[in-house]
Amino acid sequence: MIIGVGIDVCPVERFAASLTRTPGLRDRLFTRAEQHTPAGAPRTGESLAARFAAKEALAKALGAPGNLHWHDAEVIVGEHGRPLLTVRGTVARRAAQLGVTGWHVSLSHDGGIASAVVIAEGAPA
Amino acid sequence: MIIGVGIDVCPVERFAASLTRTPGLRDRLFTRAEQHTPAGAPRTGESLAARFAAKEALAKALGAPGNLHWHDAEVIVGEHGRPLLTVRGTVARRAAQLGVTGWHVSLSHDGGIASAVVIAEGAPA
Amino acid sequence: MIIGVGIDVCPVERFAASLTRTPGLRDRLFTRAEQHTPAGAPRTGESLAARFAAKEALAKALGAPGNLHWHDAEVIVGEHGRPLLTVRGTVARRAAQLGVTGWHVSLSHDGGIASAVVIAEGAPA
Repeated sequence: MIIGVGIDVCPVERFAASLTRTPGLRDRLFTRAEQHTPAGAPRTGESLAARFAAKEALAKALGAPGNLHWHDAEVIVGEHGRPLLTVRGTVARRAAQLGVTGWHVSLSHDGGIASAVVIAEGAPA
Repeated sequence: MIIGVGIDVCPVERFAASLTRTPGLRDRLFTRAEQHTPAGAPRTGESLAARFAAKEALAKALGAPGNLHWHDAEVIVGEHGRPLLTVRGTVARRAAQLGVTGWHVSLSHDGGIASAVVIAEGAPA
Repeated sequence: MIIGVGIDVCPVERFAASLTRTPGLRDRLFTRAEQHTPAGAPRTGESLAARFAAKEALAKALGAPGNLHWHDAEVIVGEHGRPLLTVRGTVARRAAQLGVTGWHVSLSHDGGIASAVVIAEGAPA
């Protein structure tokens, strides 16, 4: 049973320019873990743009209630580099209200376009 | 149980140019309600492009049978501005044939690219 | 029950340039059937880019294990031109491990951007 779906497309160049222009934006949007690869290197603008798209897509899948905190949805790296979503706080509460029991996420970045799709899945009542 | 999924990506500038170039296209594609925001302002080209992408994505989720009327799938605005799909006529009949019991839609427009994803969900038999 | 979702966005021009530049790439990525339309015409660069995006999206839906062969996922053409996925060999084995029982795919190409979304569905245990 699907609770919601979200898609977001984010132009990498513009997003990377915002990160440069706005001090503190990177820390506001992303956890320390998200800002680095599993090997410890700082993530590129396109990799961060894809993670931003994932957070936007996740918010849309939850009906974009507007009171979600950026750090309460985190893109972590699973086996084979697969992106996974983990939620807490504001996002976990909204998800629980809607009956979300699992998350599916996919990221893409190529040719200057970052995008993400998120599906929030619930258990049939 | 998923009946079908659809994605569509629509370049905003080209779509907006078609609306300008082709008299009547706006009315052919969109209901009166879709052409305006909940506050009554005319929708921008990018907002209409995203709605067009949603109708294309919905048609793909239904297997693109080719006899669906544009006005028979409508993007309405729910709580917090969330887009929702409502169907009637040709689209409702096709959906019923396939066993669709619910719709999930998400829209994105940024950097000149409008996109949408639609999932048609059915009840397990 | 959803096993995984995948999205991929592929800039058509760059992909078409790779096909021209790299002899054998077309045959490595695509089966003979995929390289042609049902009417027998060679597929355009944008149509092949969308099929490449579908294979990438499918791999992401399976957790991108990295040992999947390109020909083991094939985009075939169903009723009304609807794209369908068929899998075999490396891809079928990975899908079976994860409990995938069905595939949903959608393709888009417009304005130089090809994209695809894939959902791998499983039966509830």
